[in-house]
Amino acid sequence: MGALNEGRFNVELENGVTLGGCIELGLEREPETVAIEDAVKVLLQGLGEDINREGLRKTPLRVAKALREGTRDMWTVGLLSCLSLLLKVKTLSSVMLFYEGTRKLMGEVFFRLQREKVKDIVQGALFPEAGLESGIGYAGGAGGLVVVRDLDLFSYCESCLLPFLVKCHIGTVSSQQGVAVVLQCSHIHFPSFESAFLESNHHGWAKVLVSSGSGVFANEKADIWGNFLSLLKFRAINVEKIHLRDSADKCWCPSQTTSKIGPANSGMTSAVVSILRSLGEDPSRKELIGTPTRFVKWLMNFKNSNLEMKLNGIHLYTEAVNPIGKSLLQSIVHFHGFKLQVQERLTRQIAETASSLLGGDVMVVVEAHHTCMVSRGIEKFGSNTATVAVLGRFSTDQTARAKFLQTIPNSTTAVG
Amino acid sequence: MGALNEGRFNVELENGVTLGGCIELGLEREPETVAIEDAVKVLLQGLGEDINREGLRKTPLRVAKALREGTRDMWTVGLLSCLSLLLKVKTLSSVMLFYEGTRKLMGEVFFRLQREKVKDIVQGALFPEAGLESGIGYAGGAGGLVVVRDLDLFSYCESCLLPFLVKCHIGTVSSQQGVAVVLQCSHIHFPSFESAFLESNHHGWAKVLVSSGSGVFANEKADIWGNFLSLLKFRAINVEKIHLRDSADKCWCPSQTTSKIGPANSGMTSAVVSILRSLGEDPSRKELIGTPTRFVKWLMNFKNSNLEMKLNGIHLYTEAVNPIGKSLLQSIVHFHGFKLQVQERLTRQIAETASSLLGGDVMVVVEAHHTCMVSRGIEKFGSNTATVAVLGRFSTDQTARAKFLQTIPNSTTAVG
Repeated sequence: MGALNEGRFNVELENGVTLGGCIELGLEREPETVAIEDAVKVLLQGLGEDINREGLRKTPLRVAKALREGTRDMWTVGLLSCLSLLLKVKTLSSVMLFYEGTRKLMGEVFFRLQREKVKDIVQGALFPEAGLESGIGYAGGAGGLVVVRDLDLFSYCESCLLPFLVKCHIGTVSSQQGVAVVLQCSHIHFPSFESAFLESNHHGWAKVLVSSGSGVFANEKADIWGNFLSLLKFRAINVEKIHLRDSADKCWCPSQTTSKIGPANSGMTSAVVSILRSLGEDPSRKELIGTPTRFVKWLMNFKNSNLEMKLNGIHLYTEAVNPIGKSLLQSIVHFHGFKLQVQERLTRQIAETASSLLGGDVMVVVEAHHTCMVSRGIEKFGSNTATVAVLGRFSTDQTARAKFLQTIPNSTTAVG
Repeated sequence: MGALNEGRFNVELENGVTLGGCIELGLEREPETVAIEDAVKVLLQGLGEDINREGLRKTPLRVAKALREGTRDMWTVGLLSCLSLLLKVKTLSSVMLFYEGTRKLMGEVFFRLQREKVKDIVQGALFPEAGLESGIGYAGGAGGLVVVRDLDLFSYCESCLLPFLVKCHIGTVSSQQGVAVVLQCSHIHFPSFESAFLESNHHGWAKVLVSSGSGVFANEKADIWGNFLSLLKFRAINVEKIHLRDSADKCWCPSQTTSKIGPANSGMTSAVVSILRSLGEDPSRKELIGTPTRFVKWLMNFKNSNLEMKLNGIHLYTEAVNPIGKSLLQSIVHFHGFKLQVQERLTRQIAETASSLLGGDVMVVVEAHHTCMVSRGIEKFGSNTATVAVLGRFSTDQTARAKFLQTIPNSTTAVG
């Protein structure tokens, strides 16, 4: 079912401790976990944060757990999710083809499972479906196309260390030993605080669609590819609009195209190098060389002292603009967003700032997809959170509240 | 990330064994698991199946694992999924209110966690968000409404033992100690083989929407309920159309309204009683008294000997009807569906039967949501599988295949 299994479950109940990254009490920590915690403390201090304040006290451990657990069995579980369906009728070689295909596509840091391990894992699960071996005809299990769609996974970007979401689609033709993989990857944008003010439209996700095929799928012009993509297309995936690529080349990570914002703090960069090492990675591997710097630069967007400076900037700007404009509201949202935040506090702060500018009656609804709901071991991909803050008249006037809520358009999922 | 954690992960790699219910080699099994396996063998034999045939050999163990793992930590994980968001700003009492609310709503078998255990689990995870305690105003974290939406869970129906899917939405107002829970439950229909022929429209799901509230949500007429439901409504949940109920009363399970199909095999019924006992349940608990009989009756729809009889029925029917009609195609689908099946084989069998009636050129696409992708520990709620079978001209004519695929409408998710 999830992050808990029997042995650990019992241990946890006895100690009042659970995993999933959210609750930790008194368990002895492994040295790698402690090393990551220490590194995260360095990063938080580099951001000008008080690591002892209530909301941050357990953050280093949460981050360490999330990284270690997420990178440990992410691919095992992801693979097995797919395999549990494929295995009913497939041979080991199709499974290995799928594995190699996804590995080729995912230019990501934490691909731990070795080929031989995967082989061991899946070997015992295979059983032949009658008709498969004979390969007669082209119907159903005896040779037809099987497509498993919409498997939600996540991974960490090799280039910037941020998590990204993956929707995975697999096509197989067992009798002819072919496997096709299409991954829809969604990566958060990589704006600097400055660009948040300059570009009004950096919300949403950087997306890339990559594909890989082997066996009968080796040639992307083959008819079988057309059939496979047809079956994805009527799942609302417009494959024609998005260029299919046979590997996720580096530039798809938005960090690669973002303008530089000065050299990174070397203490913080060393801390990220230490994190990579604690995760069993070689930080000198060529794909990882710029990663600590990029991650630190991204993180520095959220530096506390920057915010104080910007706050003055906003206030000056505010006084010059009246009535309040859409771009000012955007600025308020970005301003409060560029902190280490909690959604409830963010909502309240937006309301309070807007109220101080508008003079009282404010209602704010914030809708958010929390990546931590995915990457912190919980994997609730579709879940999302709405928070409401009301001030002035909206505090007492239910009709006004109801009217405002009705004006909000149907929200669509952020990743699709 | 999922079903695997560190200790177990290592063990598994060493032994070539994984969990998730799909791969099992040589691990010693607990007595409860063995007891369920034995009971499942009785059920399979009652269905006229050869328990030693390749596709069924590991089924008893898979079922045992799925039931034990699914019922063990389902609620822990489900709760923690929700809590990981709630916990950021909530107090223990809101969490307990949520727990009691969902427990009240879910009339289901396997609710294992005791109140005190939940308390232990969440206690260490709470930290106050500044402004919460003072309760000043009604903005954001200091008192505003927080709604966590679209948490996917599953459970087992107390009345018939089949798994059902749950979309869970939670509203809280921390400063005022209120919690609201809305569950959208989707249960498969409970048709008999006969009704599959009589009713053309039994596809889809039996749905029920239930709600519970406490604290400021205790009164369903309160303004705060209106705001909460507004925030669900613009997530495409039409709460007005569905009657909100404050508990899942018995009759929502379709098994309660299905016509009787004779007394159940007593050996099979005893086997189900044994399964309940192995899961730590008391089969004499009043909600469970009819469950084994209902489950066995449902299972007997899939009895092998029934199918042979029906096959003759179809063939006779077929000769009388020409050209092949929609209802006959439906009958073919139902006929092949009412077996212990594998999707690929089902697709092929439909194609072959249709081909024998139509004389050659047939293309079949089957789309399916596999409940086992949810209940067998993988929790890929959105995933689905398409299979294709082609015979005759469709085997060689790519244009014909492409044309057919284009005629298939965009599929929508089965549960929504």
